This record gives sequence, C-alpha cells and structure tokens, in this order.
Amino acid sequence: MFSLAHRFRESPLSQRPSVTELEVHDIRFPTSEQLDGSDAMNPDPDYSAAYVVLRTDAGEGAAGSEGHGFVFTIGRGNDVTAAAIRSLRPHVVGRPAPLTAADLAALHRELTHDSQLRWLGPEKGVMHMAAGAVVNAAWDLAARQAGKPLWQFLAGMSPEELVGLVDFRYLSDALTPEEALAILRAAEPGRAERAARLRERGYPAYTTSPGWLGYSDEKMIKLAQEAVADGFDQIKLKVGSDLDADLRRMRLAREAVGPDVRIAVDANQRWDVAEAVRWMSALAPYDPHWIEEPTSPDDVLAHAAIRAGQPVKVATGEHVANRVVFKQLLQAGAVDFVQIDAARVAGVNENLTILLLAAKYGRPVCPHAGGVGLCELVQHLAMFDYVAVSGSWEGRVIEYVDHLHEHFADPAVVESGRYRAPTAPGFSARMYPESIAAYRYPDGPEWQARLARPAPARPAPVPPVPAPSASAPPQEDHQ
Amino acid sequence: MFSLAHRFRESPLSQRPSVTELEVHDIRFPTSEQLDGSDAMNPDPDYSAAYVVLRTDAGEGAAGSEGHGFVFTIGRGNDVTAAAIRSLRPHVVGRPAPLTAADLAALHRELTHDSQLRWLGPEKGVMHMAAGAVVNAAWDLAARQAGKPLWQFLAGMSPEELVGLVDFRYLSDALTPEEALAILRAAEPGRAERAARLRERGYPAYTTSPGWLGYSDEKMIKLAQEAVADGFDQIKLKVGSDLDADLRRMRLAREAVGPDVRIAVDANQRWDVAEAVRWMSALAPYDPHWIEEPTSPDDVLAHAAIRAGQPVKVATGEHVANRVVFKQLLQAGAVDFVQIDAARVAGVNENLTILLLAAKYGRPVCPHAGGVGLCELVQHLAMFDYVAVSGSWEGRVIEYVDHLHEHFADPAVVESGRYRAPTAPGFSARMYPESIAAYRYPDGPEWQARLARPAPARPAPVPPVPAPSASAPPQEDHQ
Repeated sequence: MFSLAHRFRESPLSQRPSVTELEVHDIRFPTSEQLDGSDAMNPDPDYSAAYVVLRTDAGEGAAGSEGHGFVFTIGRGNDVTAAAIRSLRPHVVGRPAPLTAADLAALHRELTHDSQLRWLGPEKGVMHMAAGAVVNAAWDLAARQAGKPLWQFLAGMSPEELVGLVDFRYLSDALTPEEALAILRAAEPGRAERAARLRERGYPAYTTSPGWLGYSDEKMIKLAQEAVADGFDQIKLKVGSDLDADLRRMRLAREAVGPDVRIAVDANQRWDVAEAVRWMSALAPYDPHWIEEPTSPDDVLAHAAIRAGQPVKVATGEHVANRVVFKQLLQAGAVDFVQIDAARVAGVNENLTILLLAAKYGRPVCPHAGGVGLCELVQHLAMFDYVAVSGSWEGRVIEYVDHLHEHFADPAVVESGRYRAPTAPGFSARMYPESIAAYRYPDGPEWQARLARPAPARPAPVPPVPAPSASAPPQEDHQ
Repeated sequence: MFSLAHRFRESPLSQRPSVTELEVHDIRFPTSEQLDGSDAMNPDPDYSAAYVVLRTDAGEGAAGSEGHGFVFTIGRGNDVTAAAIRSLRPHVVGRPAPLTAADLAALHRELTHDSQLRWLGPEKGVMHMAAGAVVNAAWDLAARQAGKPLWQFLAGMSPEELVGLVDFRYLSDALTPEEALAILRAAEPGRAERAARLRERGYPAYTTSPGWLGYSDEKMIKLAQEAVADGFDQIKLKVGSDLDADLRRMRLAREAVGPDVRIAVDANQRWDVAEAVRWMSALAPYDPHWIEEPTSPDDVLAHAAIRAGQPVKVATGEHVANRVVFKQLLQAGAVDFVQIDAARVAGVNENLTILLLAAKYGRPVCPHAGGVGLCELVQHLAMFDYVAVSGSWEGRVIEYVDHLHEHFADPAVVESGRYRAPTAPGFSARMYPESIAAYRYPDGPEWQARLARPAPARPAPVPPVPAPSASAPPQEDHQ
C-alpha cells in the first residue's frame, strides 16, 4: 500500500486564524416568473442557493477572513439544505481555519465520516450536498488566503498532496492511490505550459440557451445561429417530450448550424431503457453529439444498456450522487462523457476524485453548469483538470448558461465560446451582500414584496396530483 | 401497455375527513450512554426518530383521526430530517385524508415527483426518507380507518389495486406492470390460508443481540446459546474490524450453537472488494449464512464481484437508497437476500415495489430492523409479502433487536423466535405521547436534564479528525 504519511506540508497552527462563524442564508431567485430556463416539464423552478459563509478571526478584509460556498437547489427544500449545512457547524466553528491540503483533506473526511450524519445518506442527497457546500467554502477560504484562483491553487499542489485529498474507500477495484499518483505525475511536466495556454485562450464552452423545450422553432433557430456567431461550436437541445417534435427541431437545428457544430441533446432523466434506445435511434441521423441524462442518475446498468443499444454517445453526472456511482458508470462502460457538478458531491475533494477516475478510464469531463453560480465554480475544476490531471481539453467543454451571474462578485466570463481563466483569488463563489440581502427567503425585500401580493400565493403552489399511471413522466427538466 | 385506468375503488370524497395537521417531533433516545447496540466502530449512536403525526378532522378517537410515521436516524441530523418532513406539509394539510389505494398511490407520486424537492435527491437521502415517513403515516391512517393491521389491509387489496400503487418509472427493463400483476395474481388463491397460518404460527425472526463487536467472547457465547434456547434458529455477528478476532468469534459461535443454527455476519459497509473477498473466504469454513453490507450500499458492481469472488451468500439493503438500486442489485446477480428497510425508501409503496422486484428475481426478502420502531413497521411488510406476493417464508427471516419497544403502543412481539402477527389496526407506528414528550430534543425533560449537566457536553461531541489515510475505516457499525 502506497504510504500517505509525511505527504503534507504542515502549517504551524499558531499562525492560523480560527473559524468564528458558519453563516447560512436561504437565497431564492424568483426565476419561475420568467420563462427562460423553465419549460413545460418544469413549471416553476426558483433557482436557489443554500449559501454558507465561513468567517475567521483573521480580521476583516484580510485574505483569510472568509470563505463562501453553496448548494444549488430549485426552490422548495432550500430551507432543508440550509438546515443540513447548519448541522455541520460543530465540525468547523472554533477550529483552526482549514488552509493547507492536509487541513482540507481532514475537513472533507470529517464531514463525510460523521457516523451519525452519515446515516442520512450515506454520502448522498441533502446531507452530502451540505458537506460539499462547507468543503467548497473552506477551499474558497484557503485559495483566497493563498492569493490564487482555485484552479491555480489546486494546480500548484504536488501530486502527493493531491492524492492525499482523495478518499479512496470503495475505489480500490477501479483506482488505487498509486494509480492516481501516476496520473498526476504524468501531467506534472506540462503544467506551466498549459496554464499559460489557458490564460491566453480560455477553456471551451457550450451553450444551452437555444435549446429550451418551450421555445418556438423560430426562436430556437435564431438563438442557435447567434450562438454559432458568438463563437460556440457546441449547443444543446432539450428532448424527450414528443419524438416527432424532437425530430423536427433536431433537423431544423442541424440545418441552422451546419454539420460542423456539435448538437448535444438532453432528456433530463425522462426515459426507461427501451424508450431511450428507440428515441435516440430515431434522432441519430441528425448526428447528436451526446444524449445527456437519458434515464435515472442511479441506474448504471440502464446507462450501459442505452449506450450499447443505440449509436449516440452517452453523458451523465449532474445528479450522480457520489464517487461510487461515477466509478461504476466508468467500470460498466456506461458513459462517454463525465458531467461533474460542483455542488452535488462533497466538494472539491470528491470532484478531484471523479476527475482522477475519469482520467483513469480515459473519459473526458464536461461539467454541468447553469443554475445559480455553477458556472462560477465548475470552471475552476475543469481548468485544473486541464492543467494537472487529464492534461487535455480535446473533446471537453463546460456548459454555459447566461443567468444570474450579476449576483456574483467574480462572475464567470465567456467570450468567443470560451471561459476566460479566472484571476481573482478564491473559488468565484462570493455573492454580493446586496444580492444576499435582497433575495433571502422569506425575509428579503424581493420576497416580502411577492409574499404580500394576494395571488398567486407564494411560495409556489402545490403541484397537481398526477394521475396514477405506469408511465407518468418525471416532473423535471433542467440543464 | 397494461392499462391502469378504472383500477381503483373510489371512495366518495364527501365522506372523507381532511388532514388538518402535520405534526413533527425530533425524538432522540440517549442510547449512546449504554453499550448495547453500540460498539467500537460507532461510539455514540443516539437512536432517534423524526416523527410525524397526520391529524384529521374525523374527530378525536375516531378510527381515521390520526396516522403516525417516522424516519429512523442515529442522532445528529434528526433535526434536518424533521425539517424535510415539514417541507412536505403543503402536499398533505388541507387535503382529503388519503384512505384508498388510489389516494395512497397519488400521495406517493406527489411526494416523490415534486419537481423542486426532487432536485434534493433525486429519490434518495434525507428528502426521500422524509417522503417515506409521510407516506407511511398515511398508510397507518388508512389502515386504522379500515380497522385492520397494515399487513392485512394490504393483503386485502386486489392485484390491480396493488399494481396501481407502484411507480414503474425506470423499472421496465426489469419489471413491467403486467409481470407484477401476474406475480400478485399467482399468489392470490392461497392468501386466506397463508394469513391463517401466519396468525397461528408467526413469522420467522433472527436476533442480532449476541453479535455486537464489543462483547467479550464469554458474553457472545452466552447470548448465542440463550438465543437458541429462546427458539431462534438464526443469529448475527458483527465482523470486519480484525480478521483474527472474527475467525475466533465465528469458531466459538459455531461451537456454541452447533451446525444447524444459521450464523449471519455483518460488515457494515466496511470493505472494498478485494478485502471482502479475502475476509469472507477466510470465514467461509465456519459456514456463515450471509455476509451483510460488505461494501458501499451504492456499489452494485462491487456486490456482484464480492458475490462471485467468495462462497458466502450476499445480503444488503438497509442503506439502499431506492427501487432503482435494488433493481440493479437483482439484475446484476449481486445479492442473495434483499434486506428492505421500512424507513429509508419512500414508504409502503416503494417497499411493495421492491417486494415485487425480489419476487420477479426469486430472491427472498429478509428485512432489516432494530433501531427505533423498525421491527414494528417492517413486520407488516414481510407478512404481506408472505400472504400476497412471494407466498413463501422459506429462507426468510425478519431481524429482531429487543430495544426501545416499550415506547410503542403496539410493540412487535417475538416469541419462540417468531414475530407474532399484529392484530391492532394500523402500522404499529404509534409512540406513546409520554415517550414523545419525554424524549423530544432538546426540550423534553430527559434531554433538559442531560443538557444541564456540565460535562460531557450534549449533544454528542464532535468526533476526532481521522488521520488522512487511504484505508480509513468507515465510522459506522449498525444492525
């Protein structure tokens, strides 16, 4: 067994600030009032964040004085996630601020291994996402303290430090510490050159903006052409509601963008195996780049069957609960593209683990983004992957949705179809205090005004009772 | 496609009471103060319940006036689960009380298909368990209204009504509505005879009491012999901490109970694949009946590899998140025994689904129990399985732990190694109001007294930071 002792640079405890507060805010944006980003399958998403601020005694304005993180949700239940984050307070407050790789490894393990809290997953759902928000806030804090954007902070760590961040439990049948170290060492020589290229050229992006299911054909065509004119060489369309309509839209989109622009399609977990195979076999002549979330994110075997049963490549990950499920998707040959999400698994550490698994199996990572702040976070992970893990951006793209960036102090910037490399220290997670104050639920003025209106009652109404049916479609449709 | 229309007996809405309240209680028992049920791997479980009471306007004391349900947790985080249950209030309060199969099908679908709340899973973890608690409370209410214990209420439904309770989404590659109907119809002729046999003889149980890892050899031997004398023909030992110790304990237990009493072993998710294979190959000469939870509950492929790699049969399920993962465990030939849990998936409806999947694949269901109230609930599901689904109790056993039953109004009764068939109306979920009042956290007198003590501080202390290590054991060990 590869020894993990003596791997970390120790920082003297006496010089470290302590965490004095873990602040939690239930922030919701009333996006259900607009039609952009929502559609017939998902009538009322209020893009939301259970938002956490770690504060330290480093002194206001000091680099290591705060760290920000969040769980992205789509409205109801944001309070449940906020409660889960609060339950982690004793693991953080009153402790030395986590600033080094060793600290961040220890924090990640502690939050995911609390025996009582682990019962609520294990390692999945609300409790796991809450752990991820706190872990990510700690990474934001540490990167700020180091004065580096997160991607660069990570890419400045040694292969040994990076391996020490990974929880290898349940992974040894797919990835050992030795293999992870070999992957990272192989990428080490080119780090500086790739970082320079990244700063110069940015990282490839694709856009979901043209593809909402509710858009008219004309609007979809217009937005697709604009996306190409803006420099994107990949777009994405929502599918899965009506095969004839999807065939028509796919044909029109292909005619609009020509043969060289990639068109990905996204079914948002809508199908069982046979339906996915039938649908994608029919769409295949229009050359879809991938089929995203064809079925349940838990269903490794179904993804494998869908991948084997039709010609279009398979992508998934935004709802995949943890590294163990990602591991199986790779072992089973169930996916062509690994779509990490910055705010569903247990933070940077688990995403590093998933990047290493993807590298081991030779699958490109194409992160999920959109929502609130997901573009801001995930760009760092993809750029780190390019610089220090896979060493490649071939066939890789980060999703981009132009939505709610105005609330972030260091918003993601996409130009000519590429994410510009962030330069501000931290994880780009910091929301403006004014936005937090305005959109706090239910006490912020934006909500107070809405809740005071007589009708329709806010929060969003209870959805209708679906008829008992063996084939009721899922009530969900998201990028 | 099998038509689901006209399947339900409609009850006239005008006669139905309405749900007036969804009450939630954070109940925790300070079990960490005793050693029974805890061990070196799990230093401080406080067996807890996020407890829900649905109240209706049927009038106090009327059969349909209340329904009880809960999520079992082990302490910290019980408040998070309680918050999740509260978030479901708008789906229940002010609506007609769910009393018929059609109502209970609709409620289950509504709670698991709320598009905003589904984002927090989907269908896993805190939010899914909360849905299960509310669904189970509704079943308790409906069975009370019908004046029948839940197992009998369920076993009185037609195959068509039962199939209508199932959410078949993501299942069609393994189980169709037609197949489910055929399974239920095949079991229909013998229902009355099996129900009579069940009332007369009870359902087979096994006991985990001798097997806690922290017990001395002498205590383990004494308890094992007592269990056999009490009529149990299966016991269970915890394993996974030290192979030499496990070999010794397994040898002593086998000598103590003889060759005919089954000894199951339980590793509580401790191993990776290779370790499980090595360990169980070593224990195999002592004829363990099954190895339970050898690895991550999410890891279908690892369970399959462990089952293929060593001779002992594999059991899992208490932490399996939902029907989609159970489906895959069966499809992949990864398990010999399906261990349903009454309070982790989305209630009776999803457990019915899992019973049908197990029947389709010919695998016996051996429910997990223990904790708080799990024996009370799960006995109904196993008995219903016997009467109306699998039609057999051969090779089937319900776990039994003699713990905290005194808080329940209709406690499970095990005699001569068998669960007696419940006769009281409902799901046996009702806790005494005095117990709820005494053990409410943190305001109940049992907790106020403890929290007032100067040391050790309650709630349970923050666990130590584990050393960064590639092979840190999971901090968990439970029946």
